[in-house]
Amino acid sequence: MSEQDSMQIQFQPLGTRVAVAVGTDLLEAAREAGIDLASVCGGEGNCGQCRVVILNGEVSALSLDEEFILSDMEQLDGERLACCTQVLSDVTVEIPRESLITGQRLQLASNLRTIAVDPIVRAYQLELSPPSLEDTRSDLTRIAGALAESYELADTFASPAVIRQLSPLLREQKWQAIFYLRDNEIVGLGPLGSRPLGLAVDLGTTKIAAFLVDLQTGEELAAAGAPNPQIGYGEDVISRLNYVYRNIDGGQVLAAKVRQTLDDLLGELVQQAGAERDQVVDACIVGNTAMTHLLMQLPVAQLAKAPFVAAASDALLINAAELGLSMAPGADVYIPPSIGGFVGADHVAMLLACDLDQSEKITLAIDIGTNSEIAIRKPGMPFLNAVSCASGPAFEGAHIGHGMRAASGAIEKVRITEEGPLLMTVGDTPAVGLCGSGIVDVVAELYGSGLINYRGRFEKEKADVEDGRFGPQYLLVPAQKSGSNHDIAVTQKDINEIQLAKGAINAGLAILLEMTGTRPEEVEEVIIAGAFGSFLNVQNAINMGLFPELPQAGYRQVGNAAAIGAKWMLISRQARLHGQEIASQTQYQELTTFPKFSRRFALGMLFPTAERQETGEDGRQ
Amino acid sequence: MSEQDSMQIQFQPLGTRVAVAVGTDLLEAAREAGIDLASVCGGEGNCGQCRVVILNGEVSALSLDEEFILSDMEQLDGERLACCTQVLSDVTVEIPRESLITGQRLQLASNLRTIAVDPIVRAYQLELSPPSLEDTRSDLTRIAGALAESYELADTFASPAVIRQLSPLLREQKWQAIFYLRDNEIVGLGPLGSRPLGLAVDLGTTKIAAFLVDLQTGEELAAAGAPNPQIGYGEDVISRLNYVYRNIDGGQVLAAKVRQTLDDLLGELVQQAGAERDQVVDACIVGNTAMTHLLMQLPVAQLAKAPFVAAASDALLINAAELGLSMAPGADVYIPPSIGGFVGADHVAMLLACDLDQSEKITLAIDIGTNSEIAIRKPGMPFLNAVSCASGPAFEGAHIGHGMRAASGAIEKVRITEEGPLLMTVGDTPAVGLCGSGIVDVVAELYGSGLINYRGRFEKEKADVEDGRFGPQYLLVPAQKSGSNHDIAVTQKDINEIQLAKGAINAGLAILLEMTGTRPEEVEEVIIAGAFGSFLNVQNAINMGLFPELPQAGYRQVGNAAAIGAKWMLISRQARLHGQEIASQTQYQELTTFPKFSRRFALGMLFPTAERQETGEDGRQ
Repeated sequence: MSEQDSMQIQFQPLGTRVAVAVGTDLLEAAREAGIDLASVCGGEGNCGQCRVVILNGEVSALSLDEEFILSDMEQLDGERLACCTQVLSDVTVEIPRESLITGQRLQLASNLRTIAVDPIVRAYQLELSPPSLEDTRSDLTRIAGALAESYELADTFASPAVIRQLSPLLREQKWQAIFYLRDNEIVGLGPLGSRPLGLAVDLGTTKIAAFLVDLQTGEELAAAGAPNPQIGYGEDVISRLNYVYRNIDGGQVLAAKVRQTLDDLLGELVQQAGAERDQVVDACIVGNTAMTHLLMQLPVAQLAKAPFVAAASDALLINAAELGLSMAPGADVYIPPSIGGFVGADHVAMLLACDLDQSEKITLAIDIGTNSEIAIRKPGMPFLNAVSCASGPAFEGAHIGHGMRAASGAIEKVRITEEGPLLMTVGDTPAVGLCGSGIVDVVAELYGSGLINYRGRFEKEKADVEDGRFGPQYLLVPAQKSGSNHDIAVTQKDINEIQLAKGAINAGLAILLEMTGTRPEEVEEVIIAGAFGSFLNVQNAINMGLFPELPQAGYRQVGNAAAIGAKWMLISRQARLHGQEIASQTQYQELTTFPKFSRRFALGMLFPTAERQETGEDGRQ
Repeated sequence: MSEQDSMQIQFQPLGTRVAVAVGTDLLEAAREAGIDLASVCGGEGNCGQCRVVILNGEVSALSLDEEFILSDMEQLDGERLACCTQVLSDVTVEIPRESLITGQRLQLASNLRTIAVDPIVRAYQLELSPPSLEDTRSDLTRIAGALAESYELADTFASPAVIRQLSPLLREQKWQAIFYLRDNEIVGLGPLGSRPLGLAVDLGTTKIAAFLVDLQTGEELAAAGAPNPQIGYGEDVISRLNYVYRNIDGGQVLAAKVRQTLDDLLGELVQQAGAERDQVVDACIVGNTAMTHLLMQLPVAQLAKAPFVAAASDALLINAAELGLSMAPGADVYIPPSIGGFVGADHVAMLLACDLDQSEKITLAIDIGTNSEIAIRKPGMPFLNAVSCASGPAFEGAHIGHGMRAASGAIEKVRITEEGPLLMTVGDTPAVGLCGSGIVDVVAELYGSGLINYRGRFEKEKADVEDGRFGPQYLLVPAQKSGSNHDIAVTQKDINEIQLAKGAINAGLAILLEMTGTRPEEVEEVIIAGAFGSFLNVQNAINMGLFPELPQAGYRQVGNAAAIGAKWMLISRQARLHGQEIASQTQYQELTTFPKFSRRFALGMLFPTAERQETGEDGRQ
């Protein structure tokens, strides 16, 4: 294939690129790029699983198969079946997560670079001479001698928990073993042929994502997720901290809950990968400051009230067993440093994975979650600046009448047409509720259609606005068509909740720009991280005022960058150092004590209007 | 006082020296030497508490008070009341432990040098500026900054357990505190004025001795002791290891038992000293290899059978909380290295405290316990040599019909005269049994009086040998004179038990001499350590063949030198290093695999005879 007739295909949100000959179909192109698209029919155009969205570039016209399989709205949205679509130019293609085979869904998201593997824990193979009456050295001394002799590793040692395992296992394995060492500390051992694995965790306020990684290749072997079990003790960070404050054993209870879930996830990962828990010799867990404090059962009273001070902000190593994780007996968990307030190790991980400190553009990086963190990079400035917004769990489906997580039946895309709403649900099953991206869509569309005004109030006189049990509402799915046999509607209260969430994030962005003296039109790039952020319709987010109008900015949706950063810090010593640099070079500003915060917050709750955009923030006040 | 009329007084077994004017009474001399002799009457000669034994030198004649108070046997033994005895020359005085005020009994025993205090954990006082909106550094970062500024301590850190304590305490103490650091790790904190303390423990197979020490002065603040609670699972080392081997949770059970006792002892010590547990920031625990393995719950299956290999022999640091010790949250316990087989950290501590590796004489060092360790120093040789003897608990009163620990009513001295036995009991209360030193006395006296022969068999034809329930026996105290209303007698079985114990120790000594090519007459010094060893009548021990005839040797009874070595390693970094050197420079020989062991053991069970001494070991065989 000559360079002339090769076309560049870029797959979003993974960012993977591949060059293929003109006329190649996108299923084939995806395969060449190493992306496993779901395809039961094997490319015959009749299973309808290999859906993609053409973002730009020329492709072949819609086939008959596609016209039959794709709904009107899907066609409107630019969806295609990859197997039926031939590339005619350079093309950018979005792969919806439902088109990836299930096991890979959590791997989504990285148009981020990869890094060199340089793990902290390494494996060493030894064949030892057994003890005899002439050689009565202790087991540990024998191992240390052999490590020194074979690998020039001096002064190796082990903790009692590791020694407890060494003596019986060595005899069982006839004095042959793979030893896992963190620097000169033996953290575990396994039979010949076993490999060192690591656990990376993004510990969110609402969701936990966990990954099992091969420490020698950096390869992700398994992924698993679970809700944060602390949700029962408070949906947001502050209510959990209050729970600890009010209950004498609150800290212990919340720590035990999350530790149990993490250990369960580890069990699931190990089983998926067909590995042993003893092979897991290192871990990196990131989360916001409150989540890591609660995990380690650190004091939080001082974190819950101004000036919101962490007990500890430096990186911490803590024995895995102390966190209830059943791994190699000497394995430590690395908790990266945090920045300030609730801006924690997860944000450090995200900034690391996005290379924000290396960017040559004025860049905003936003990680939307129950607690949302925003940072700005201005090239030439020695510091990044960061803020934290208590955006609440509305975008994760909580506090919304028919809100839900992005599970089967969740409405994830909405368009309001003259004929009524067009919807897409996760798994294409009958709708049972709204997940985050659907919520953004519906609110933006309601505003765009004039069904709500700039203050977020329903325009009751409009025909599509009906009177519901809780006041005016917009019906998305009538009971008889829903998967739950209940009407699915958006109520005034739902709109208000979304306004609170967007008010917090919008205010955070505005204040961050103001405090760094950055005009909106100077912002060149916006990196959107987080699971919700990956599936967000950015234009709708702008239309509804979740993000301010940043006329020059390109948007990049990078998926769970915090998880990627956690994986980096798991497999690379250099990444840990870089993360520590980022943490120490990022200045934190507490938003709630910023003088104009309340006003900014109130403004952020409004919807953008042409006048406000022209005259500035105060146009309608 | 001119040098001419000042007399040198040496107090044994403490080895304390003091110079006093001629004519000074010994109570006064003891006070000047810093020894608190019991004396209720204040030196009036009528309470009879300040008893001492004149070992050599000239003193004033027996006073009328003394003739009235001291029994015939006591007078025979050279006992005097210190307050009634004036020194007329240089004098060596032995202080029986019952003459020391109770709290001091465990302090007994050191004609050993003192060392410079150079603790591992040190205290730093800080007054911190509280957090504010302008200074939202985390608590730990704040402390690290202040430590760097005030003390040039860089990169200080703390474990989660310590951080858990820091944040609330700092606020309670209004940002003023004493911080305790081990190198650059914060291990705890206390209010202004608090001092760092340390715990030293001699963890014996039968007895545990624990000490609370001021880490800034090296001063012992409190001492406490308890039986090793593992006794219920086997009196000797091997039966405990077998218990672990036979019971799936055996290791856990034995560890839990001893950890609970150690924590109780710590509570007792802290209460005695009026201190707080949080002030205890360091610990050093010594014991034989089996005891330290069981404490740390290390594997012992391989230690229980040839070639008797330890799981670990290097020094170990283990978090105090992991050993169930409630101390400062970051406190570690230091377990010194062991030498080989059962020759463990306690023997290292003992050799350290005796400076055996520095000795300019050919010196034997013996620590007699349920497991007895013996080492030899030959000046010019780069190594010490050590063996371990399974002597059993007979010398601690176990396996002896009327055996008991050295508690009130225990017969601790015995002389057999033509009129019958003369006895001395602990606390001068009616006799209830025999403790170790009494057992040695009675067996030596029975042999010396010809009541048993060189094979240890009672000479049944002798009038004093009576027919008891279990065969021939010697009656020490008839029921009506005893404190228990039972006859106290020595039976043939008792003699046999003692023979087993002395056989083991005698064989160990003989083999150690042989393997190092040392003739008995070359031995210049014998250091006897251990609680039992302190109160032993050395001549009787030689007479009964516990020790071989070493014609040129001087004997030095140093008391619990292992405990002293543990204290040294608690208060001095240098001592820890020296202990590690000693461990690596001491060669261990497993006795039971030594070809002549069984024969030596059988020979050691016999009693010495003139013929055997003249013709060598085989004279009577």
